[in-house]
Amino acid sequence: MILTVTLNPAIDVTYYVDELVRQAGLRVTRVLERSGGKGVNVARVAAACAADVAATGLTGGRRGQQLRADVAEAGIHEEFCRIKGETRRTVNIVETERPGLPTELREPGPPISQAEWDHFRKRFKSLAAEADVVTMSGSLPPGVPADAYATLISVTRSVSAAKVIVDTGGEPLRLACAAGPDLVKPNEAELLGATAADGRTRLDRVLAGAAGLRDLGAAAVVVSLGSSGSVAVTPDGRWRASHTAIPGGNPVGAGDALVAGLALSAVGIRAAGSRADGSWAAGNWAAGNWAQALRQASGLAMASVLAASAGEVDPAAAKRFAEHVRIREIRGAKA
Amino acid sequence: MILTVTLNPAIDVTYYVDELVRQAGLRVTRVLERSGGKGVNVARVAAACAADVAATGLTGGRRGQQLRADVAEAGIHEEFCRIKGETRRTVNIVETERPGLPTELREPGPPISQAEWDHFRKRFKSLAAEADVVTMSGSLPPGVPADAYATLISVTRSVSAAKVIVDTGGEPLRLACAAGPDLVKPNEAELLGATAADGRTRLDRVLAGAAGLRDLGAAAVVVSLGSSGSVAVTPDGRWRASHTAIPGGNPVGAGDALVAGLALSAVGIRAAGSRADGSWAAGNWAAGNWAQALRQASGLAMASVLAASAGEVDPAAAKRFAEHVRIREIRGAKA
Repeated sequence: MILTVTLNPAIDVTYYVDELVRQAGLRVTRVLERSGGKGVNVARVAAACAADVAATGLTGGRRGQQLRADVAEAGIHEEFCRIKGETRRTVNIVETERPGLPTELREPGPPISQAEWDHFRKRFKSLAAEADVVTMSGSLPPGVPADAYATLISVTRSVSAAKVIVDTGGEPLRLACAAGPDLVKPNEAELLGATAADGRTRLDRVLAGAAGLRDLGAAAVVVSLGSSGSVAVTPDGRWRASHTAIPGGNPVGAGDALVAGLALSAVGIRAAGSRADGSWAAGNWAAGNWAQALRQASGLAMASVLAASAGEVDPAAAKRFAEHVRIREIRGAKA
Repeated sequence: MILTVTLNPAIDVTYYVDELVRQAGLRVTRVLERSGGKGVNVARVAAACAADVAATGLTGGRRGQQLRADVAEAGIHEEFCRIKGETRRTVNIVETERPGLPTELREPGPPISQAEWDHFRKRFKSLAAEADVVTMSGSLPPGVPADAYATLISVTRSVSAAKVIVDTGGEPLRLACAAGPDLVKPNEAELLGATAADGRTRLDRVLAGAAGLRDLGAAAVVVSLGSSGSVAVTPDGRWRASHTAIPGGNPVGAGDALVAGLALSAVGIRAAGSRADGSWAAGNWAAGNWAQALRQASGLAMASVLAASAGEVDPAAAKRFAEHVRIREIRGAKA
């Protein structure tokens, strides 16, 4: 079972407007709304690949109820704890008459009490005991301590042999690394924000930053680089994955799809698309098969860009994209 | 009883951000959320003045439930009809580090079926029979015919002697005028959008536009002019109300507070602030006392600007502001 942790989930609202004009009254031409938060996206992608997935975290209020119902409807085991506060929203504003990234408005998370955090840790412990892989994604809501992911890693180690993947930034990332996760997946900004990475080129800086996170205690590091692909720095070597065909679409959630792919291949779970003909076997990075693992995960990330919303993928498209991923081993002196 | 009609209500969300930067990820520092829509704001202000108020309109889904609960909690008789669609939201983005108006994102309203509109008209008929004043405010959701307010005016006339006030724009305003409302309250943009008003000065254009709406069939017209006050064109004469002291604050909902004040004074209902000493008697514009009516309504509009959210007023502040309203009769040839 893959267990995804989302401590600060959100209802993701997408507004389409012709153009975002400051201080104007604007007509929203289309509204999309779905339950999100990075860990929920990971769970959706893994479930779309027919994996056995449970999602936990902290939810509350009317929107928490909506989120739990959405998660259950997506075929995910819904294991969220209830809190007194109301689950937050994020609003993404897409401008149909101007190309570029959406404008993202992130509400602060609801405050979490000590009792709520204590209760969550107990619930998490029993869930982690059943897990093969645990993913921990995103920011922490107010009231949850900065070493929350470090604590959850220790809890996991105490009850199971599950692989742990952490996708966050800042102090929570640094503290998590010290607890020895199997893999961390920061994006470039999170990596450079958490380490004093120096280097002449972009790749040098990414390699130095990733080495820094390994020095802190992370066994392996995969850095997502947006349209430039990703870089893996592992005990077995270093790899760069890049895309020869970049689909146009919505890049929000591509990093979460990458994490889902890495979770699937942490224990050699095959993506559903590979079942019929067996030609696309997932690599098992825990056994050192990084090239195949990165290929599968990158294919899912690309398929996610093609989909309308974060957390959506077509496994068959992911399989096709995976064939267009170029994997190169990075040789030379390790940073 | 004052009956307010809100066919396209909304949950109003206000986001505070440092600065609205396009295509960036922005942290929302503060979130306000309250049930709104122009007619709901009118009902809130009238209820805050201790008037007997009922609110009706069309609501649906989780947000409709939230809106009905909020209305009831504000001491308003909650008489909304249920629809299958989900009540819309509006999002106002306030920039704390840049002065100026908020950026407003308006979701489209939910689609209304013929059966839902038929059902509403029946419910409205029984409510209108009990009303002294009926206010009809705001836009129409998809599926409701453009002559909706005209129809509701005719229904009102068939069951009661209630005064009818309409606050809308465009074709719904023009069609409403033809059904003979007692008062219409467009803002300047709505007025100039609905009439071919010509004139040398701003005041000339407003007077010409208001005369145009009277020609269409409205008995009286009050045009709200934002910080410039308002102009009344009536069978008893023409007046201009202006403020000698303009409070800084949130202008959203000031027009709704003006309508609430006009509703209170349609039948000589005193605002609560006047009860103790009787010094601030409301004018009864239906009896020709426009100067007092405009004074009370303008005081409420100013108090609304001072309040944090649309639909909020402190009646005592409204009374103080009313003393600073300057009322001048506009003499000369009627446009």
